[in-house]
Amino acid sequence: MKAAILVAPGTVLADLAPAHAMLSMIPSAEVHTVWKKKEILSAFPGTFPFLPTTTFAECPRQLDVLLVPAVGPEVHADDETLDFLAERGAEARFVTSVCAGALMLGAAGLLNGYRTATHWMLDEMLPQFGAIITTERVVVDRNRITSDGGSAATEHTIVLAKHLVGDDYAQEIELFFEWDPQPQLVFGTGTPTKAGPELTNRLLTKMAPEFAGFAPALAKAVERLQAQGLLEDRAALARS
Amino acid sequence: MKAAILVAPGTVLADLAPAHAMLSMIPSAEVHTVWKKKEILSAFPGTFPFLPTTTFAECPRQLDVLLVPAVGPEVHADDETLDFLAERGAEARFVTSVCAGALMLGAAGLLNGYRTATHWMLDEMLPQFGAIITTERVVVDRNRITSDGGSAATEHTIVLAKHLVGDDYAQEIELFFEWDPQPQLVFGTGTPTKAGPELTNRLLTKMAPEFAGFAPALAKAVERLQAQGLLEDRAALARS
Repeated sequence: MKAAILVAPGTVLADLAPAHAMLSMIPSAEVHTVWKKKEILSAFPGTFPFLPTTTFAECPRQLDVLLVPAVGPEVHADDETLDFLAERGAEARFVTSVCAGALMLGAAGLLNGYRTATHWMLDEMLPQFGAIITTERVVVDRNRITSDGGSAATEHTIVLAKHLVGDDYAQEIELFFEWDPQPQLVFGTGTPTKAGPELTNRLLTKMAPEFAGFAPALAKAVERLQAQGLLEDRAALARS
Repeated sequence: MKAAILVAPGTVLADLAPAHAMLSMIPSAEVHTVWKKKEILSAFPGTFPFLPTTTFAECPRQLDVLLVPAVGPEVHADDETLDFLAERGAEARFVTSVCAGALMLGAAGLLNGYRTATHWMLDEMLPQFGAIITTERVVVDRNRITSDGGSAATEHTIVLAKHLVGDDYAQEIELFFEWDPQPQLVFGTGTPTKAGPELTNRLLTKMAPEFAGFAPALAKAVERLQAQGLLEDRAALARS
């Protein structure tokens, strides 16, 4: 079992931590955290320096799992990273993402025509890559397994374990991660609908500076896919 | 707002990731990941190399939050680490743990007489430090906030945000982390009771080699606290 998890500047640790643990607990698994070079990166939000284990060049060509967590906006327009994802994704048994990781898969041309989940803040950004947005928390469409952000990483990991190894292993992982949510501990504000517009807009306003980089990077990624003939030029279609 | 998160060989990333993000998103927060020195550590399970930001010596003396995730068994008998936790814990506004982090707090003498939560696999190990085991997922007892393992890290983070900053911020964090669990996505095996004895014993057998180091390290930690007069010698009491 060979797995590669993309890491990059601005990686969200909570997105990759459960899957990294689950994959590492499969006997004789080979789990790589991959980036261009073995340089110190920092997670987002905050400062958490870490090192990739494996360069793109060293990463196995045939992967059982290619997993992408949320990474920084600028990475979505990075040719080297998108080429790596497109190549490995074309041959991987499962191509999978958590949170904004779906935007990276989309930017690499891997979600065109696929039903997809991502963090609710990013829903409107995905269709430009041909992805079909859903309201589901974890979506399995052929060999693509995508999920919402943050806490959905645990359900994503259980669903991935089920498809990759089987029900018995997935049930062990659910028990290991103590997936037994207790509603009375929290507020019930886990979705925009449940939170209501005031709270939702307050959070969106706070996050706006962090998210400002996405739009230009994604626009560049769309142009790149169109130039490669991998995405229809909707503007051109509209003109014709 | 000053926070320190203990990191060490064998740190469980999933335990610290949500709290690290939540603390880092508080305006003007100072969030340290602390260890003896700035050397490369690896997470557990699997290989995930990372760097602490701050040494024990550099860590602020007055902390708003001292947070301990699960760390490797051998750390539970390490004098330097236990002394650091005891000193900072005595003055911190909140002393808090996820999963096996409660064993470290216990070994540092910080849970004697406190109601406590930890991963169900470790429940029997905690009372030797005077901690009172509960079946709750997140426990707040005075300024101690402890929680179960794995996925409970998210609820722990929301509860910590509530006590540290207030309801408005905690609700934003719940929405940011999309805490909206979907039972139909999983198996319903998230606790030993729900999983049943066969699955539970299968997982315990698999994890036994990883957990073998805990008993001798914790026994040494108990002796250390007794020698410091911080824990009653129950064997001596029984003899008298």
